[in-house]
Amino acid sequence: MTADADRADAEDHPHAHPAPTVRVALLGCGNVGGALAEILLTRAEDVAARTGIRLELVGIAVANPDKPRSPAIDTDLIGTDAAALVARDDVDVVVELIGGLHPAHELIETALRNGKPVVTGNKALLATAGAELAEAAAAAGVDLLYEAAVAGAIPVIRPLRESLAGEQILRVMGIVNGTTNYILTRMEEQGDDYDDVLRDAQELGLAERDPTADVEGHDAAAKAAILAALAFGSDIVDADVHREGISGVSAADVAYASRLGYSVKLLAIAELVDGGPEISVRVHPAMVPRAHPLAAVRGAFNAVFVEGAVSGEIMLYGRGAGGGPTASAMLGDLVDAARNLLAGAPSPAPKRTSTTVRPQADMRSAFYLSMDVADRPGVLAAVAKIFGDHDVSIRAMEQVGLAEEARLIFLTHVAREGDLLATIDELRRHQSVDRVSGVLRVIGGHDEDGAGGTP
Amino acid sequence: MTADADRADAEDHPHAHPAPTVRVALLGCGNVGGALAEILLTRAEDVAARTGIRLELVGIAVANPDKPRSPAIDTDLIGTDAAALVARDDVDVVVELIGGLHPAHELIETALRNGKPVVTGNKALLATAGAELAEAAAAAGVDLLYEAAVAGAIPVIRPLRESLAGEQILRVMGIVNGTTNYILTRMEEQGDDYDDVLRDAQELGLAERDPTADVEGHDAAAKAAILAALAFGSDIVDADVHREGISGVSAADVAYASRLGYSVKLLAIAELVDGGPEISVRVHPAMVPRAHPLAAVRGAFNAVFVEGAVSGEIMLYGRGAGGGPTASAMLGDLVDAARNLLAGAPSPAPKRTSTTVRPQADMRSAFYLSMDVADRPGVLAAVAKIFGDHDVSIRAMEQVGLAEEARLIFLTHVAREGDLLATIDELRRHQSVDRVSGVLRVIGGHDEDGAGGTP
Repeated sequence: MTADADRADAEDHPHAHPAPTVRVALLGCGNVGGALAEILLTRAEDVAARTGIRLELVGIAVANPDKPRSPAIDTDLIGTDAAALVARDDVDVVVELIGGLHPAHELIETALRNGKPVVTGNKALLATAGAELAEAAAAAGVDLLYEAAVAGAIPVIRPLRESLAGEQILRVMGIVNGTTNYILTRMEEQGDDYDDVLRDAQELGLAERDPTADVEGHDAAAKAAILAALAFGSDIVDADVHREGISGVSAADVAYASRLGYSVKLLAIAELVDGGPEISVRVHPAMVPRAHPLAAVRGAFNAVFVEGAVSGEIMLYGRGAGGGPTASAMLGDLVDAARNLLAGAPSPAPKRTSTTVRPQADMRSAFYLSMDVADRPGVLAAVAKIFGDHDVSIRAMEQVGLAEEARLIFLTHVAREGDLLATIDELRRHQSVDRVSGVLRVIGGHDEDGAGGTP
Repeated sequence: MTADADRADAEDHPHAHPAPTVRVALLGCGNVGGALAEILLTRAEDVAARTGIRLELVGIAVANPDKPRSPAIDTDLIGTDAAALVARDDVDVVVELIGGLHPAHELIETALRNGKPVVTGNKALLATAGAELAEAAAAAGVDLLYEAAVAGAIPVIRPLRESLAGEQILRVMGIVNGTTNYILTRMEEQGDDYDDVLRDAQELGLAERDPTADVEGHDAAAKAAILAALAFGSDIVDADVHREGISGVSAADVAYASRLGYSVKLLAIAELVDGGPEISVRVHPAMVPRAHPLAAVRGAFNAVFVEGAVSGEIMLYGRGAGGGPTASAMLGDLVDAARNLLAGAPSPAPKRTSTTVRPQADMRSAFYLSMDVADRPGVLAAVAKIFGDHDVSIRAMEQVGLAEEARLIFLTHVAREGDLLATIDELRRHQSVDRVSGVLRVIGGHDEDGAGGTP
């Protein structure tokens, strides 16, 4: 049976008939694709019983057909021509698992133009060409769904698109990269150095051999762009996201933050600034107060914190990666896409509008700074004067002796980020300052100034 | 414009046309209804921009039309005849906010039979007549949506219905009552007695003058029945849910649990037992290890922890009550119901099947027990023998002196609940045992036996 043939039936007797069948093609069959193919091939009856829709896997396009795969996957299903598979008349829905920009972009666009809904988790593509693909989907009146693109199995995209559809979103703030959260958690819990934990993570397969995409925040920045599009209809792409990674965070910074009651987390943030319409979209490590729900997100787990004008604070937590969890998210999308295809009505998608991003230098936040200085009289006064000259007010200072040198730790009141950067610039040029190392923004709860800016 | 008139348009050009209008009636206008009415009356344009659907509030039925309300609510909208409002031709969707079983049940059923989708948060009604109402909705081919019935603004129902639609759910475990969580959090953080905190909570409006529904777990049991229906298609009603409240939990129990690294939480649990098909649905206080995400849920917040076979662990966290958060959840449902009405295809609803509930006496768990005994030689041996006679193995014991008496604290290995109850029964009859007070199940992470039962 095809989607079209069943449509009338499904509408007349939505619950009485045998489940209509929707035919699925997978592009790519690695870790996630393999898990999804196995579910589709071995649990189709269960899925049909739970959802009223039978998902039939009719083809899989892969680069290397000879790679060993699960015995559940019939080799007859496997081919190498993805474009031909997308074009097949007996394919109703396409799941894109190839990753990267090309040929994923062209394949998805072709599927959409031919009225075939697409399920993908391709965050790199969505963060650059998301607006364009959303338009193609809207023009064709079919779904482009991507729950798996942010935070794996955790329902994040759907709540933003649907549960909070009528809500004014004020802020979305998440731990959306498991590798960096694993590294920072180990640094906090065991006092280990960044380099050592990174090496362990690489050996455990939790970090890539080239870890740049994770540790420098590129992966999180792509997700921040996707979340900003959903929350604010913004059309900003990943390259526009202010981005700082965790490679500059030292064990000493993490230990000091912990002593003060904070956990250091790499956050992806998209928020209205001062009530809007300007937004801020950024990725950086930050000190999160231990009482904040995000501070309790440990190891490779992910979580996304959403603040709505009416709903208040919501947090969605779970496994952000892994074949099974990611396949589960895609299965949810697939059921939705199939259901909407049968009904002839796609999921609502937020309108994209041109949004203005507040320049990072004009954002306001409290900061943590650590610096190594020569241990001689007058240095603290000189350093304090530099802060004052740039309108950055010091909330707390502590000195830690280091033989010839001293380490100074500062917490500032809420300050304009441009002023803080100018302060650091001048500090670095001062003859008694050897090094300004850790610079971390401090999140909420500790701001005596009551000023806005960083939550 | 009516829903019907727009349907063809909406399908042909899903994103190009002015937003179609769907006309909404509210039954009830208290705390939640007032908040929802204000959103519908003041933010219709924003909602239409975000969702593509214009929600027009056309009538409100209330018991007392003279009660003071927000000036945003035009008095022309207000009437007293709920049945007449439901029957009006210009009402497309009905929001039920009256609460209780009657006349809510009849009003909802009438609306559904007339092809009008219903949004409700009426947990008492859903937990008793949910299966029947779901059937009426399915027969009419329209939505019965109730995100607000469990955990307020937190998207819980929708992820279970949709995101995890293809997933085999293994367990749903939640903190779904804010009053009891506020009380237990205060007891833990400030060492206060149950009675004192309850009195404070009543003064703060966080607990009802008659707190029974909250503190004895009736509210949580209704939510557990609703979650079991969604997760397992179970047809059990709230009266079938094993239920224990928190009125027997002492400050000493909470302090002792805290010293051992646990937080005491009132949990609503629905789970497959030993892989199914039997399920267990229950509400009781439990010791939750501090590293578990549910232990970090403090004060009046709610959270629901979902374990899927493929998705792994997911937690959904936020405000479980309050006019704004609850209205936000209902608004999300309203958008969904309106969208599905225009498309002519309701949301998928899980099939209800007759499920077997494992008797509570046959469930297995580790337990915490505290008892007051006469402080004389031989008592511990006598007490230990009683445990052994009933096949309950002791993992740890501690004695706390209390003048004439001594308090004994026990942690057991995983034991059959019936055996534990028989142990308590015999202990209570023993001449040297004055009182068996705290009895708490211990949740996961600490079970050296590796046995199943309570997670």
